[in-house]
Amino acid sequence: MAQKPSIPKGTRDFIPKETIRRNYIFDTIKSVFNLFGYQPIETPAMENLSTLMGKYGDEGDKLLFKILNSGDFVSKVQDDVWQDKNASKLTTKISEKGLRYDLTVPFARFVVQHQNDITFPFKRYQIQPVWRADRPQKGRYREFFQCDVDVVGSNSLFNELELIQIVEEVYKRLDLDVTLKINNRKILAGIAEVIGHEDKLVDITVAIDKLDKIGIDSVMQELLSKGLTESEISILKPIITHQGSTKEKIELLQDQLKTSEIGIKGVDEIKLVFDYIESAKVELKVELDLSLARGLNYYTGAIFEVVSNEMQIGSITGGGRYDDLTSIFGLKDVSGVGISFGADRIYDVLTHTNKFPVYKKEQTQLMFVNFGEQESLFILPLLKQIRAAGINAELYSKSAKMKKQFSYANQKMIPFVAIIGDEEINTNTIQLKNMESGEQEKLSIEKLIEKIAE
Amino acid sequence: MAQKPSIPKGTRDFIPKETIRRNYIFDTIKSVFNLFGYQPIETPAMENLSTLMGKYGDEGDKLLFKILNSGDFVSKVQDDVWQDKNASKLTTKISEKGLRYDLTVPFARFVVQHQNDITFPFKRYQIQPVWRADRPQKGRYREFFQCDVDVVGSNSLFNELELIQIVEEVYKRLDLDVTLKINNRKILAGIAEVIGHEDKLVDITVAIDKLDKIGIDSVMQELLSKGLTESEISILKPIITHQGSTKEKIELLQDQLKTSEIGIKGVDEIKLVFDYIESAKVELKVELDLSLARGLNYYTGAIFEVVSNEMQIGSITGGGRYDDLTSIFGLKDVSGVGISFGADRIYDVLTHTNKFPVYKKEQTQLMFVNFGEQESLFILPLLKQIRAAGINAELYSKSAKMKKQFSYANQKMIPFVAIIGDEEINTNTIQLKNMESGEQEKLSIEKLIEKIAE
Repeated sequence: MAQKPSIPKGTRDFIPKETIRRNYIFDTIKSVFNLFGYQPIETPAMENLSTLMGKYGDEGDKLLFKILNSGDFVSKVQDDVWQDKNASKLTTKISEKGLRYDLTVPFARFVVQHQNDITFPFKRYQIQPVWRADRPQKGRYREFFQCDVDVVGSNSLFNELELIQIVEEVYKRLDLDVTLKINNRKILAGIAEVIGHEDKLVDITVAIDKLDKIGIDSVMQELLSKGLTESEISILKPIITHQGSTKEKIELLQDQLKTSEIGIKGVDEIKLVFDYIESAKVELKVELDLSLARGLNYYTGAIFEVVSNEMQIGSITGGGRYDDLTSIFGLKDVSGVGISFGADRIYDVLTHTNKFPVYKKEQTQLMFVNFGEQESLFILPLLKQIRAAGINAELYSKSAKMKKQFSYANQKMIPFVAIIGDEEINTNTIQLKNMESGEQEKLSIEKLIEKIAE
Repeated sequence: MAQKPSIPKGTRDFIPKETIRRNYIFDTIKSVFNLFGYQPIETPAMENLSTLMGKYGDEGDKLLFKILNSGDFVSKVQDDVWQDKNASKLTTKISEKGLRYDLTVPFARFVVQHQNDITFPFKRYQIQPVWRADRPQKGRYREFFQCDVDVVGSNSLFNELELIQIVEEVYKRLDLDVTLKINNRKILAGIAEVIGHEDKLVDITVAIDKLDKIGIDSVMQELLSKGLTESEISILKPIITHQGSTKEKIELLQDQLKTSEIGIKGVDEIKLVFDYIESAKVELKVELDLSLARGLNYYTGAIFEVVSNEMQIGSITGGGRYDDLTSIFGLKDVSGVGISFGADRIYDVLTHTNKFPVYKKEQTQLMFVNFGEQESLFILPLLKQIRAAGINAELYSKSAKMKKQFSYANQKMIPFVAIIGDEEINTNTIQLKNMESGEQEKLSIEKLIEKIAE
């Protein structure tokens, strides 16, 4: 009895149409990364559990996919532990490896492990899948790609500029209208300091991070519940809700944070980044958003988020500067900054805005109809000539009904179909049909190549 | 205490230089697949164990990496089974998913599952990693990429021709000298039939498959031990060791196999493929190798293997026709043919022959030396202009010693370095250094772009 085929929940197959569209996104992102001097690395899908555990919090540890040890995995487990029959105690006894949960921890591990084989400042990108045993739901998968670009070993703010330029160029090439929001964790630290609550920086960050979703009143409620007073909140609120220009916001901060060394450092950094943006003639919409916080805790400087101006879907790209990522693996004082492009959401925005182009590189441009052995043998050398000109082309694999062959061409979205019968063989011409316009014409092989190469 | 970072044995990190070289191979292969009208698909890294188990033999089942069920994986195991503490009985109770072992079984599953969403004949390629819990050794990894190209739903021999042309074009682009060996399983079946041992086809195939490694005498010994007689072997031996031309070999087979229907069918198929090769003006070295058997059992027609003529490393590409791959998932009578490129071995051959080109697409072409804030701000708009011309370029991220900056450029193998000091700013020129020749010249931005674009 044959099995009914299926795949694990939360995972996906991609048919050609989808794969080609995904590759369009990945190829675009990659070519921009290369344009700015970033180079690719790859790490294994499996990491040692000792590398992964404890890096994503207790919840993260539970969401790691763990690989069962090979062979007789039970023999190493002591009998009393076995008798306990306790899943969480047993896990590390029968499993030593897990699937990559993100690209950040493997990257930190990579930098430390290969510090003598790589060149600092190390500008790298990495586009690979990650796996999380999350409950699957709309837009959330158990296997998805991350596209990370980072530079480590340099605290120059030119790096921040470069990442902003990368965002600009990627979305320009994808023809999407976006806004980049920027803030600086040092400014948030400064705010916490001037209201006398450096100790509550995490609570403040987490609360502010929800502003978009729950509104200012709920954020204030949450801060009250975390122990901030009304008067402390009255300092914070006008800052994070300020609606003025970048210049006005910076002036406000310079005034409000003047007693906080870290706060003023953050303001200076932001100001310099905006100066660089002007010098580099960046045309991207860049907005200083003082309510931008980003949940994750390892950021220490600039933070970024990109939103679509054409579709409400949340952040489609995000990142920031971190000063201490590699120290968990023993390498201290390596500052870095990076961003990550969300390929699945970008896919949704391109679908929603109908902006996927025909990606010629991976599409067949021309199909020859197959009338039989005789005609096919005549076509073979022509095909060779057409492919030598770089045109993706194929001969339908056998003589079948015209309707069937045209339907194949339609389904594969092949723009041109060529027909060669007795008459064409005798006159050494090719009947070329434009599948979109329906237009048909007789051409020499040279003219045909010229026409399609357009 | 910081952990000493490491990765699981048998897996690999790839630093930029290696990743760029691997991408050169993958990109070359992909572009040729596209040229012949094949399109990409992707399947998940994890498959249900029910999809994978029993498809690769008992040994294969053991080599599958299995994923531990999430959450309280022990609670579903009955106490008496638990008390047994038997690894092989427990595996499927605490694990429902496994990592992809090859691309063939997931492809068969994919075709059946998506038969209404895809176009037949279905021409697809798939380039993704697979995982095997094999004992790691030189050249054998637990994670490695396969590059498979197949067409299913057509028994036309034009497909065989197309795969041969793909092999030709891939190795032409990679500048490698190779020979493609071809045989047909029906010929092997015919030989078994004429010596009266259709029942021993698998034994005969397995023995012949070892000819390259153990020599003709040992193969004959093995056949004797499997129950063939001396006189039976005397029919087989001259066929598989025949050193003549393709034409002579075909004539020999036509004579020797004339009483075997399947044998003659195999000879006719081979003959037709060689006719097609001639018509299509294939320039690849193609050799009819009657000792080629290929171990795996699912092949039913043409079989292929490609060897390097520049390095002894075994098969670097291989495949064949199969008539019944999808029936395990409930779809009958779908004939297919495919080949797989071995990226790791191709990497080794390119290294050995020193034929890796500079892969400009992923390399930085130009670096600007950083003399400080003032000069950098002057460089930013120039960089924008250079990148707009499609040249991968970067500014060293901060003002550092010249020696350090040049060493960075050297290590990243950047071919050109640009220097802009006071004088260059005043005269609106750029000092350009060719890192290979050491040559230095002053240029306008336009001339510089022209020069590097060369």
